Amino acid sequence: MDITPILSKNALSMRRSQIRDLLSVATRPEIISFAGGFPSPETFPVEDLKKIMQEVLDTEGAAALQYGSTEGVKVLREEISRLYKRDENLDVPVENIMITTASQQALDLVCRIFIDPGDVIVCGLPTYLAALQSVWSYQGQPYGLRHNDGLAEACNVLCATGKRPKFIYSIPDFQNPSGETMTLEERQYVVDVARKYDLVIVEDTPYKNIRFSGETLPSMYSMAPERVIMVGTFSKTFVPGFRLGWIVANHDIIERVIVAKQSSDLCTPVFNQMVAAKYLSSGAYDINLKKTCALYKRKKEVMVNSFEEFMPKGVTWTNPDGGLFLFLRLPEQFDTRELFDLAIKENVAFVIGEAFHSDGSGKNTMRLNFSFASDDKIREGVKRLANAIRKLYEKYGI
Amino acid sequence: MDITPILSKNALSMRRSQIRDLLSVATRPEIISFAGGFPSPETFPVEDLKKIMQEVLDTEGAAALQYGSTEGVKVLREEISRLYKRDENLDVPVENIMITTASQQALDLVCRIFIDPGDVIVCGLPTYLAALQSVWSYQGQPYGLRHNDGLAEACNVLCATGKRPKFIYSIPDFQNPSGETMTLEERQYVVDVARKYDLVIVEDTPYKNIRFSGETLPSMYSMAPERVIMVGTFSKTFVPGFRLGWIVANHDIIERVIVAKQSSDLCTPVFNQMVAAKYLSSGAYDINLKKTCALYKRKKEVMVNSFEEFMPKGVTWTNPDGGLFLFLRLPEQFDTRELFDLAIKENVAFVIGEAFHSDGSGKNTMRLNFSFASDDKIREGVKRLANAIRKLYEKYGI
Repeated sequence: MDITPILSKNALSMRRSQIRDLLSVATRPEIISFAGGFPSPETFPVEDLKKIMQEVLDTEGAAALQYGSTEGVKVLREEISRLYKRDENLDVPVENIMITTASQQALDLVCRIFIDPGDVIVCGLPTYLAALQSVWSYQGQPYGLRHNDGLAEACNVLCATGKRPKFIYSIPDFQNPSGETMTLEERQYVVDVARKYDLVIVEDTPYKNIRFSGETLPSMYSMAPERVIMVGTFSKTFVPGFRLGWIVANHDIIERVIVAKQSSDLCTPVFNQMVAAKYLSSGAYDINLKKTCALYKRKKEVMVNSFEEFMPKGVTWTNPDGGLFLFLRLPEQFDTRELFDLAIKENVAFVIGEAFHSDGSGKNTMRLNFSFASDDKIREGVKRLANAIRKLYEKYGI
Repeated sequence: MDITPILSKNALSMRRSQIRDLLSVATRPEIISFAGGFPSPETFPVEDLKKIMQEVLDTEGAAALQYGSTEGVKVLREEISRLYKRDENLDVPVENIMITTASQQALDLVCRIFIDPGDVIVCGLPTYLAALQSVWSYQGQPYGLRHNDGLAEACNVLCATGKRPKFIYSIPDFQNPSGETMTLEERQYVVDVARKYDLVIVEDTPYKNIRFSGETLPSMYSMAPERVIMVGTFSKTFVPGFRLGWIVANHDIIERVIVAKQSSDLCTPVFNQMVAAKYLSSGAYDINLKKTCALYKRKKEVMVNSFEEFMPKGVTWTNPDGGLFLFLRLPEQFDTRELFDLAIKENVAFVIGEAFHSDGSGKNTMRLNFSFASDDKIREGVKRLANAIRKLYEKYGI
């Protein structure tokens, strides 16, 4: 049967991930891929997990393999609360934490409880692609801001024209894809604007604890817990294959996302939650996270040094203080979609920057991941990418 | 801030689970609960899992702890395909199987790609509560049918009045909550009606492999793969704490649910999928499932025998050939909501049948789970429930 006529407007409004489709051509073994957002397998605490899993099965098997509550396993929420207190001196009661099936579900549930068709969400230009996908899937309209300091004006215009944003979506630390971090003043400004226009802020913090240099900055949640929904994940600091994330929010919002999660998947895998809780409480998490930060710092330096060595004139890049990504810019007239084909011929892959721009701009940009490839491959991959860029330049007689 | 004015219509249309709220009073240790849908922890293959988890971490740790594809781990989809072939002589190519974060996510994604506000879904009276929750959460309207043989007439009227159902939702084997199984003729009839009106059928099969007596009947999917979406889960045949389910459907539908799942949670936990695949291929799954069926058969018999021994006149029940639940009826004039309070005083809990009736009917019914409590507790719980029913009768002078 032909299902097209009976699809929901939501289904028709969903957009397939460009990353996914681009990556499908980038799986040949000879390709060095900077495209994904994969943590390095070197950071996976396999031996710790072997031990902890046996313990969980020996001592709590009946509970760990059973259904759990929608809000999540209490010991894991207590560990998350403990880390906020220890690392950021932030009081987050367990009741304000809901475990999600990784942070993508957190973003999706937030979109689900707030977005009606046509509703506006303010986000960055660029911003995280899969957050845009969730917004689109509920027929929301992302309004992309190139610079944070345009926020007040944008909110003013949007509210005056009956398009009051449902929320402001922001990744303040080592943003995906740009790698940039908001200053304390920028955070305070966003919070002030949100207060003035009585808006919710969704603060997405997947990379926050992967910091190479500088000090952790206060979360916007700490400045305005009444209106900030803070989203976290263990995908970069522990393992992505467990699918564990969380939402921190005020009571009213937590109650709504619990009901939305009930019909989404009832609960997040209990076994995974209990293993994560034990891993956190054992202290192995802290030790491993330090190693992860050191590893990614080195990998980023290898990538940036390789840029300096190989890149032709006119290419610029961000040099992030943390996270997994950095952002490259070609001169304005070039399109990284065209570069992508040349790069694949050179056996190197990246994500075109346009995918992260809700308004279709950013055609001269691209995102590169530095956490997954080995040091040697990073250097070799950058060399290949630089060659592809030279070929693009030549094609246009530059 | 007050979030009520900015909630989506979806959020306002969501209904909190009555089971969840009722269960919150039923957690006192002295209460014997027939309310949940928990498998018996006796069925959890703890020792097999300890071994398999070590193997997976030793041999495939880097892949098992990493991100995975949205459609799911291929070896698990191959195992599911193999079981369909072996157990039902059904050819289901791997490409037509998508792994979900348990069957609740499967139901939710199906609702998400089909339901616009006001759309009608045809379901049973009674039917699975959390499926109704998903329908409501997208502002769909369940149309409940008391008897299957009214389906043609209902579809005729609905289509004639511009309310063509988006799909027919059905649990043909040991239905939740009724415990009833559709005959071969009933399945063929539903498929014929769906063909006539060109409708999708969502065939939910969580209990299908928990059969105590009789032969497995052909799925509706086997009769009409072009229009049936078959949903499966390992929550009852393996462990619920892993959150593993799947969708079988034609190519067009699978493509749509993959895109919907991308923005819902990117992928289902990879580690859990790889452990499940190894468990299935080892043969331990088959051995354990046989034990589970024998265990639940006995528990059901203990419950039914206890009914015969203790229940006052006027109470009737279903006697299912499989699954986890049976359904009890009081004489028409009684309300099990009133009984619930009396039962809690007697330290026994159940779920009021009204929760499973989308039209608010079924007030004289209740669902009882027989898989979780021990044999002794089943007998004692039924005795207490019978006492509560006698007290309800007395209150009305019967």
